[in-house]
Amino acid sequence: MRPTVPALPRNGLVLELFTEKPLFLLATLLELARTVSSAEAPMLGFNARDAAAERALETRFDATLDPADYRALLGTMAAAPNQVGSPHNKANAELALRLFRSWGWDARIETFPVLYPTPREVMLEMVAPTSMTATLSERNLREGDEADMLKGALPAYNVYGADGDVTADLVYVNYGREEDYQELAREGISVQGRIALARYGSIYRGLKPKLAAEHGAVACIIYSDPRDDGYWRGDVYPTSDNRPADGIQRGSVLDLTQYPGDPLTPGVGSSREAKPLAIRDAMTLVKIPVLPISYHDASPLLAALGGAVAPAAWRGALPFTYHIGPGPAKVHMKVTSDWRPKDIYDVIAIIRGTEQPEQWIIRGNHRDGWVVGAKDPLSANVALMQEAKAIGKLAKSGWRPKRTLIYASWDGEEAGLLGSTEWAETHADDLKRHAVLYVNSDTNEHGFLGGGGTQSLQRLVNEVAGDVKDPDTGSTVGARAQAKVDVDNYRARIPTPPEPTEPSVSLEALGATSDFTPFFDHLGIASLDLGFGGSGINGLYHSSYDTFANYERFGDPGFRYGVALSEVVGRVILRTANASVLPFAFGDFANAIGRYVEEIHKLENGLHTRVDQLARLLDAEAFRLAADPALTDTPPPREDRVPHIELAPLDSAVTMLKRSAASYDQALAANPTLSPAVRSRVNALVGDAERLLLNPGGLPTRPWYQHLIYAPGLSSGYAAKTLPGVREAIEQRHWADANRYAALTSAALMAYAQRLDQAAAELRRP
Amino acid sequence: MRPTVPALPRNGLVLELFTEKPLFLLATLLELARTVSSAEAPMLGFNARDAAAERALETRFDATLDPADYRALLGTMAAAPNQVGSPHNKANAELALRLFRSWGWDARIETFPVLYPTPREVMLEMVAPTSMTATLSERNLREGDEADMLKGALPAYNVYGADGDVTADLVYVNYGREEDYQELAREGISVQGRIALARYGSIYRGLKPKLAAEHGAVACIIYSDPRDDGYWRGDVYPTSDNRPADGIQRGSVLDLTQYPGDPLTPGVGSSREAKPLAIRDAMTLVKIPVLPISYHDASPLLAALGGAVAPAAWRGALPFTYHIGPGPAKVHMKVTSDWRPKDIYDVIAIIRGTEQPEQWIIRGNHRDGWVVGAKDPLSANVALMQEAKAIGKLAKSGWRPKRTLIYASWDGEEAGLLGSTEWAETHADDLKRHAVLYVNSDTNEHGFLGGGGTQSLQRLVNEVAGDVKDPDTGSTVGARAQAKVDVDNYRARIPTPPEPTEPSVSLEALGATSDFTPFFDHLGIASLDLGFGGSGINGLYHSSYDTFANYERFGDPGFRYGVALSEVVGRVILRTANASVLPFAFGDFANAIGRYVEEIHKLENGLHTRVDQLARLLDAEAFRLAADPALTDTPPPREDRVPHIELAPLDSAVTMLKRSAASYDQALAANPTLSPAVRSRVNALVGDAERLLLNPGGLPTRPWYQHLIYAPGLSSGYAAKTLPGVREAIEQRHWADANRYAALTSAALMAYAQRLDQAAAELRRP
Repeated sequence: MRPTVPALPRNGLVLELFTEKPLFLLATLLELARTVSSAEAPMLGFNARDAAAERALETRFDATLDPADYRALLGTMAAAPNQVGSPHNKANAELALRLFRSWGWDARIETFPVLYPTPREVMLEMVAPTSMTATLSERNLREGDEADMLKGALPAYNVYGADGDVTADLVYVNYGREEDYQELAREGISVQGRIALARYGSIYRGLKPKLAAEHGAVACIIYSDPRDDGYWRGDVYPTSDNRPADGIQRGSVLDLTQYPGDPLTPGVGSSREAKPLAIRDAMTLVKIPVLPISYHDASPLLAALGGAVAPAAWRGALPFTYHIGPGPAKVHMKVTSDWRPKDIYDVIAIIRGTEQPEQWIIRGNHRDGWVVGAKDPLSANVALMQEAKAIGKLAKSGWRPKRTLIYASWDGEEAGLLGSTEWAETHADDLKRHAVLYVNSDTNEHGFLGGGGTQSLQRLVNEVAGDVKDPDTGSTVGARAQAKVDVDNYRARIPTPPEPTEPSVSLEALGATSDFTPFFDHLGIASLDLGFGGSGINGLYHSSYDTFANYERFGDPGFRYGVALSEVVGRVILRTANASVLPFAFGDFANAIGRYVEEIHKLENGLHTRVDQLARLLDAEAFRLAADPALTDTPPPREDRVPHIELAPLDSAVTMLKRSAASYDQALAANPTLSPAVRSRVNALVGDAERLLLNPGGLPTRPWYQHLIYAPGLSSGYAAKTLPGVREAIEQRHWADANRYAALTSAALMAYAQRLDQAAAELRRP
Repeated sequence: MRPTVPALPRNGLVLELFTEKPLFLLATLLELARTVSSAEAPMLGFNARDAAAERALETRFDATLDPADYRALLGTMAAAPNQVGSPHNKANAELALRLFRSWGWDARIETFPVLYPTPREVMLEMVAPTSMTATLSERNLREGDEADMLKGALPAYNVYGADGDVTADLVYVNYGREEDYQELAREGISVQGRIALARYGSIYRGLKPKLAAEHGAVACIIYSDPRDDGYWRGDVYPTSDNRPADGIQRGSVLDLTQYPGDPLTPGVGSSREAKPLAIRDAMTLVKIPVLPISYHDASPLLAALGGAVAPAAWRGALPFTYHIGPGPAKVHMKVTSDWRPKDIYDVIAIIRGTEQPEQWIIRGNHRDGWVVGAKDPLSANVALMQEAKAIGKLAKSGWRPKRTLIYASWDGEEAGLLGSTEWAETHADDLKRHAVLYVNSDTNEHGFLGGGGTQSLQRLVNEVAGDVKDPDTGSTVGARAQAKVDVDNYRARIPTPPEPTEPSVSLEALGATSDFTPFFDHLGIASLDLGFGGSGINGLYHSSYDTFANYERFGDPGFRYGVALSEVVGRVILRTANASVLPFAFGDFANAIGRYVEEIHKLENGLHTRVDQLARLLDAEAFRLAADPALTDTPPPREDRVPHIELAPLDSAVTMLKRSAASYDQALAANPTLSPAVRSRVNALVGDAERLLLNPGGLPTRPWYQHLIYAPGLSSGYAAKTLPGVREAIEQRHWADANRYAALTSAALMAYAQRLDQAAAELRRP
């Protein structure tokens, strides 16, 4: 369900090196950079001989990947709607099971019963100042056969919206973020007892009805503005892949910021035996009815709004002046659902490792879509399947991985990461004991390799990206990703350092956009999320238009980027499986933490300054003087002064972490000859180091989220907040929490650094 | 003709003080701030007794200002179209003459014959891929009487566009700036032999056809996109004052960046005797036909364009995907004009000073409009007239100014500052000898006091703004202007200094937006431009909708801000006229120069970095790798390295200037008792100090513009470039010019500092 967002210039590793006057590590990195992509390039965790053997293996892996296979399998899997509960969803699970087994994997289906409402009735009409009944449907698919193919699709809806039948005045709330409600307050407008009309974008859709309900709204409508993914962005379907007038973005409104997965079984796997919560006690369920609509349906509603003119940043691309309301547009809306539990089907395939079978490498991609889901998720699911085929072929030829591989085709991701979460919760103890890596993908198309993950995997990803050829340019996918960042920075007038830099697919902090969430945020398993894309907005996202024909036309003509994704992920998996020492490098991680702590300092200082600035403005009545007397312009409320927050332990932890990480990375780069026992100890020490970053009590107000470094933002939903316990406590002015989590996070980072020291000591053992 | 632009947060004095850790001057400023607005507040150039008398005089001045007079005079002057050559234009001149005389002024009309084409035929039609004839007219005026009133208006046109009859493919060029043509080059698109379709905004309209012609276009169409001043901004006429679908922005396309005024008599006053240039030799005339159109007419043209999708920043608010072309939209366009000379009428009114009659204070506002011109320019012209009435009344009661006052009602401003320029050129020798101040206004409406000017007048403006009550809030107009800046900064998250600041109407650098240009940029007379506004975009700008009824409805209901403008400008005039020592303070000026030099350093450093960054990207083929292979994406050409530019003399000049300015300001603040002879010498020394900033040879490529500190930007037109000789030479990579003008500018600043030292020595003479 990962939404495609426009590519922005990023200042990842490159700028950090530039501004921090890098230490001795830079020399090492640049040394690497000059030789990257050659057959003799160093390979993290391998000695030279093993690296050559690994490269030979990867060449054999690549040889099995055939674009025709991708096309054929996508055609089959995307032949009909495959949402949870549909016949084709189950058929695809059974197909995946058969295929894994035919390729030599030990495969099974694990079934979980989950709360998964499906719509019985959806209705929306404007009753004042004029009458209009919303179509709530998509009717412009080009191919007759596809229109036929969509039989069995559900009405467009937001899964987990409440049942309801309400009539009330409309208020336009922009993206429906907390800051949008602050703007409404400034203008003296409330959604209390009214229906909030929000546009898609900026934050996770599930927060829109949640915040609307918290502010008193009785229902929430979410529409796709052409400014965000329609004609303003570019030509629309069928000319190109921007959203047409009747395109509707379906999607979950589960409150993922609390916990993903079955809303009735937080923290434990759902099963026939589990005792579920009552629906009313499930805190991830929104309390009001919600409906997604197209701008064809939204346009008359918006045009009928009166009241204040919307602020500049709120205005979309529809051809009239945007007003906020409330009213005179009044809307009648009805939603009822079938709330009976449904079964979801995870397909799990395993090849056992030979040398360190107790170390597990997990690879997953979801399989369920909103309608047909050709791009999201089947494009990347097919890449996963072809990796499994190629690995199976290697295995049939006698090769075996040193570590155990687990391939997973998840169900129920779209509703809230149901399949991955229930599986991860069910097998939590084993996973915490054994898992060393989780690699996710979700959606794939032509373009640039991008990714997120724990930064101890940055070096591995860079090495792999330097070894995979980019289909469009003939360069490497790493060089191309770096070029994109460099050129975007140049065009945005952001200076970059004069030294040549290692091509890098700069790993972003992970939020909660896909199935890595339970593995990473809940269980502390080092995780990666990879995919190609970034050439544009995906305007067919979660609509009936996400079909096989459209994916072949707009997404990945020739399926060359499907192959490229398999080549990238396959290498990540195979190198991690075969490495003598797990291919983790910790300098990148330490630098990232340093950057995050720096941001926390800036956040705290900025808040100090801002509270004082506001106080002075209020003292001077500046808001009254600056206002247009014809408009309502309420001054913001006075804010409490910011007390001292004890951040020094974080600074100390960063210093220690940087030293320990450099020491470990150098010891590994020295390529020591290790006895099997030492190797095993080092692998054990670094294999679960990520778990040291968990807080068993979780984050403030959300115990399920245990990772102290990364979490989805409470106010953003999808997007990550780093050092979330500290950062969000400061943002929310919970000073006690800020101090407490600064201490907890520092302690975790110290433990992590000590772990690296232990591992480095093993590597240096004579 | 000053265009209204959205108010942006500004970092004027306030941030400068914050970042520069101000010197001892700050204490003085803050001392002043605490007492400002009280009857005992110090008044620059006055001792305490004289200040009390001056305040009493100003109270009597205010007593004459009656909103009913403003309404009545505006009603009369805005009763019919008053463009150059119209009967009502001449009638208004004669009315002004009668009024000045009736108020006791010595008044006359000065007539200048000028080149001023008026349209004979304008025609625009799309001939492919479909047919459409543009309406080229505004037809939705609400009041029948106003529609009648508009008889005698000219067709909407761009004065000084060439005659022509062309048919060619259309290309959309965004704002038609040089950077837009760079973007077109990147996408492999040329306007050669085609018609450029530009939208209004960002730069002076006259540069759009100029650049189009330079790039080979055969004609230029300029339209008003609803994103820039139409429905995207807010409700349109008749609900509010944003531009309706058929609204057309008329305007000049004279190349003001070379010289304003009659295109055929650069540098000299036009007269029956003057020998004009041939039209083909006038370098300010554009070579291709130009037409302004509404978005009602532009919409089908834009919608018919094919080719590449326009970049995000190019997209307006029309409800389709913006494409660049060229074609398939093909347009036939015809423009012919009557090129015979026309007469323009400046009305000049004088009251001779008693003590220092040789020091002249000039106050001007234009009188000609594009159609009726109720807001632009009559709203502010009426304020000027009412000032003259009030001053006349004071004079009739026996008061006389110490210095000479000259009030001017300019004609022909809209076509290119014709009336003010021809008058200033005609009287150049006298003006250089006598003028100490020029005060301009152009357009006025409710809102915030804003202004531009030489920063030696900043203190005077602040003192005045602290003494005038704001009609809407009851605070002072100075406090309100400062509150607006402070609150905008807060909302834009720009920190401001913790110390309380003096309320300030931060004077912006002057470009060439109105009639101050010949006085300031050509003759080196200290100038101010003042007006209220900034509450929004002026979407009726230069259209038939700029009528009396609409001005009363949207511009200044109750005419209270007309009165406030007279109160502000009247005080500026009266204080300058009556001050013992001219009310200039030079610390603000020195700080501003320091800031400008800082910017030049940043510009030079940034260019170094950027040239190197580009070279690295080109070496790495990064542009090819970052491109979408489906699109044309040409890498930028390699740039030469930046040589050393000798900026050290500018740094030295700033140091010296800051010291000299502080010394003078302190000497004046000590309020010395001066003999008439010393006073006269000090006034003479500071009265023409601004002239020391002129370079008799002018700026590179444009000898008419002689001011070394301020000029309209060659690439922006209206907007100012500071230290233009140096800055634009660096921007254009004319390294020899950069060095030469750095030396010239430093020398001028040194001479200015020495002049202040002389004056300070006089003030300190025992």
